[in-house]
Amino acid sequence: MSALQAGATIGMLGGGQLGRMMASAAAQLGFDVSIYCPEEDCPAARVAIDQVIGAYTDVAALLAWAKTCDVVTYEFENVPVEAAQALIDAGVPVRPGAKPLEVSQDRLIEKSFLRECGIKTAAFAEVNAANDIAAPLDQYGGLGILKTRRDGYDGKGQVRLAHGDDFEAAHKALANAPCILEAMVPFEREVSVIVARDAVGDTLYYDLPRNEHVNGILKRSIVPSGLAEDVAQRAAKAAETLAHAMDYIGVLALEFFVLEDGSLLANEFAPRVHNSGHWTPEACATGQFEQHIRAVAGWPLGPVTRYHDVEMLNLLGEEALVPPEVLSADGVLTLYGKRDAKPGRKMGHLVRRRS
Amino acid sequence: MSALQAGATIGMLGGGQLGRMMASAAAQLGFDVSIYCPEEDCPAARVAIDQVIGAYTDVAALLAWAKTCDVVTYEFENVPVEAAQALIDAGVPVRPGAKPLEVSQDRLIEKSFLRECGIKTAAFAEVNAANDIAAPLDQYGGLGILKTRRDGYDGKGQVRLAHGDDFEAAHKALANAPCILEAMVPFEREVSVIVARDAVGDTLYYDLPRNEHVNGILKRSIVPSGLAEDVAQRAAKAAETLAHAMDYIGVLALEFFVLEDGSLLANEFAPRVHNSGHWTPEACATGQFEQHIRAVAGWPLGPVTRYHDVEMLNLLGEEALVPPEVLSADGVLTLYGKRDAKPGRKMGHLVRRRS
Repeated sequence: MSALQAGATIGMLGGGQLGRMMASAAAQLGFDVSIYCPEEDCPAARVAIDQVIGAYTDVAALLAWAKTCDVVTYEFENVPVEAAQALIDAGVPVRPGAKPLEVSQDRLIEKSFLRECGIKTAAFAEVNAANDIAAPLDQYGGLGILKTRRDGYDGKGQVRLAHGDDFEAAHKALANAPCILEAMVPFEREVSVIVARDAVGDTLYYDLPRNEHVNGILKRSIVPSGLAEDVAQRAAKAAETLAHAMDYIGVLALEFFVLEDGSLLANEFAPRVHNSGHWTPEACATGQFEQHIRAVAGWPLGPVTRYHDVEMLNLLGEEALVPPEVLSADGVLTLYGKRDAKPGRKMGHLVRRRS
Repeated sequence: MSALQAGATIGMLGGGQLGRMMASAAAQLGFDVSIYCPEEDCPAARVAIDQVIGAYTDVAALLAWAKTCDVVTYEFENVPVEAAQALIDAGVPVRPGAKPLEVSQDRLIEKSFLRECGIKTAAFAEVNAANDIAAPLDQYGGLGILKTRRDGYDGKGQVRLAHGDDFEAAHKALANAPCILEAMVPFEREVSVIVARDAVGDTLYYDLPRNEHVNGILKRSIVPSGLAEDVAQRAAKAAETLAHAMDYIGVLALEFFVLEDGSLLANEFAPRVHNSGHWTPEACATGQFEQHIRAVAGWPLGPVTRYHDVEMLNLLGEEALVPPEVLSADGVLTLYGKRDAKPGRKMGHLVRRRS
């Protein structure tokens, strides 16, 4: 497909805040955006030209919708692989593609793929039943995290395990789903690489943020990360390798644990723009949302020059019930337009200059 | 009305690019935006939650639409005063109000109002017939500009006159409309003040841009303007006085001619965000679009701190037919989503850092 011109329509699978911010970035570049998702009144649809409400499994509806789009992308990683593949089979360009969904939706496949790319991860083992746990847990020094292979996010679908715990109960708490057991990693900090790859295979990565999680949910990203330059470059190189390996077109984020000795263990990747990159529109020449749209549209990437130090704070649940005019006194405020501030729900974020 | 909270709906009269950019800024703050305008498929509606297509003179339709809005604003100055007044009479908060429309829609009323505020303008005279021209033209040294009182913009609705010209023909070229004759001003540069005033009467103004026009259309705005600080402050003071005099809530722009000796003559004002402020989102802590929305929502103003030198270049007509991926290599690109690149039409703009 050739580079999209102003007036072209970008189809977006998914209607959450990432879709909303990508839709606004697309509009600034002169594109129209059409949202396909199962929910009415979703954040992204309220800033898009059109919305089709449908199930991701309704291939006929998907194909009918895609006829109105010049290219299709997605804003979250749990779009069924079959949906993306059906579009591709019908000749619809889907960027970043079906492969990144397939890999990222299953922790076992994901970690195996990372290793095939030469990217180190924490030790892990497949767990299909509670009695698969004891042996690897011993090997990991008696401490590990049991995670469902699919559908976990923001700390959900996982449980910490120590030698002597009730493995049956732990696995049952995860609905006896297929899992992996991961070794606990004594990390010194967490960072992520937000890398963009365009349709001709050129890549650029943003300065790495250091990420602070609370209860498994990202709370703060700080840039610069304080990481030694050679370590940051190794992390970035790994993310580029991963993007190339999937023939990826768009923005992806690869999360790392950094150990005391500077060694890096990849945790997981997201085949999309990422919460830890929400500071980029305020601090960089090109924000991650515009960058993803540029790649998807077949444009060359924009410069990722960072102009100042910055931190991004997530507003979770009732934190977003503080009057917005008060919140916004403290930085550049973005609210996602969600109607209901459930505890822990990502409602918005603040970006603050640090220099 | 109290400060609007996330999820509130801002009604926008007008669907052009200014409405589009305000709608995107409003969405970032968590607001929904509903557009009312006569045109289908307008730039603003494509990023808004809702659009009602109707005439500005259809009061019943306006009132029905306004019931879905928590506050109403406008994005262009030719909304009929009667439309705004009908909404106000029905108890709908309209910001910045009806008065700014009344004043800015008629050059004679506008210039008289500026003078009542103690703001100097070029000499002008009322012209209702061709034989009203000779006497003031002589007084202005034989050079002047005949302008229709209403509906002129971007250099339209005006004609230059010199002693000895055919005044009948000139007035006829303007459809014999009620006009004013203005003295030609030997200005050294043009600048504008973009000032914001909130609901409690606090004001802030942006660093003044120097504006370059070609054929009566803004081509480039450059910041800083190179103006002496005391002259800039006098200009800003005048704009604040004007805003206070109309009990204005929102962003307005006041354009000035600067003479060689540093004296200032106000040209006209726009009761809205302004093309010469399109660099503010990229260069300042708070852009003019967000600023207008903040004021309209009853929030305090955001800081207008400018972080770097900047210029804004308008993309007119076929200039926007250059592939956007090429255009955007040269700065931060904004395209307005207009379907038809007529000559001279404002299609988008580029913002470039200068330091």
